[in-house]
Amino acid sequence: MSQATMTGVINGVDVDRMGATIRAVQENTSLGTFQFRAKNRWIGGGHNRSTIQSFYGAGQEDTARKKPFVLDSDEPPVLLGKDHGANPYEYVLHALAAGLTTSLVYHAAARGIHIESVESTLEGDLDLQGFLGLSDQVRPGYKEIRARFAIKADAPAEELKKLTLLSPVYDIVSNPVPVSIQIDKR
Amino acid sequence: MSQATMTGVINGVDVDRMGATIRAVQENTSLGTFQFRAKNRWIGGGHNRSTIQSFYGAGQEDTARKKPFVLDSDEPPVLLGKDHGANPYEYVLHALAAGLTTSLVYHAAARGIHIESVESTLEGDLDLQGFLGLSDQVRPGYKEIRARFAIKADAPAEELKKLTLLSPVYDIVSNPVPVSIQIDKR
Repeated sequence: MSQATMTGVINGVDVDRMGATIRAVQENTSLGTFQFRAKNRWIGGGHNRSTIQSFYGAGQEDTARKKPFVLDSDEPPVLLGKDHGANPYEYVLHALAAGLTTSLVYHAAARGIHIESVESTLEGDLDLQGFLGLSDQVRPGYKEIRARFAIKADAPAEELKKLTLLSPVYDIVSNPVPVSIQIDKR
Repeated sequence: MSQATMTGVINGVDVDRMGATIRAVQENTSLGTFQFRAKNRWIGGGHNRSTIQSFYGAGQEDTARKKPFVLDSDEPPVLLGKDHGANPYEYVLHALAAGLTTSLVYHAAARGIHIESVESTLEGDLDLQGFLGLSDQVRPGYKEIRARFAIKADAPAEELKKLTLLSPVYDIVSNPVPVSIQIDKR
């Protein structure tokens, strides 16, 4: 991110604080180390619930959140659930939409690009044969995700697109992330 | 998934309907084609909101949901937001926790494995230098995600782990998914 030389608030982002954050991480790279967390509990069938509260970042445990965010996931009836919440694959699309948008807005603020509105629609194609193990030619996850944005801003579409591509969630979805799983029997 | 020969409900999953679903997709693979969707709107700063309602699957538009799921995402104060919701990277962890759990529960049901409880804690390591563009040695997304499960069930830990690994979200996060982004100026 090019260092913010503007002052004040652009796109709802405090660019003074952003500049200070960038300088602080440049001077002490360990301040850039974050650990995010989610705790999840199975409720029954396709229904489970995450609580999200604490995280580590900027050199310390963050205790600003007084209560957790509570997120329910379930499957719709056609996938044998009771629709108590969006399903896990829909949450991936939300995470990606949110991440692309935030990256766009923050990086635009750092460059002095003013954004008036951002709307997006994401679609993901998933073939159930993969999850069901009916074909080893079909992956379990999304074959492809398409994101289409409508943006009002004082910069060309190509430049805005580059800002979305800097998103951590874009990196997570479009590139491999090592995931380790440990199971303890109770 | 090995075809369910049990009847009734296991782990809250109707294994009769599961067996019928598997047979239907085997006979007509196009019934396995699903398209999930999210619409997102930027509100200001790090705050944006997704609505999730319609999807295509099992050969038709699904209209069972009478209202959308509404999901808010924001950044915490240390990341220049106002904490109106979990942030995009935390939503990734929730999607993964939910997906691993659902895969475990459904595939266990198909095998007649009874599950009593599932709890998980996920941690993801992210270095802000990547997003800020301060180092091209640091990726923007998670370096690593660790999922730790505590499970009560009548099967060994190694077998339970294999069932989590069949999750579409595990595939999405640990392998590359092609993401296309189109920007239309308004």
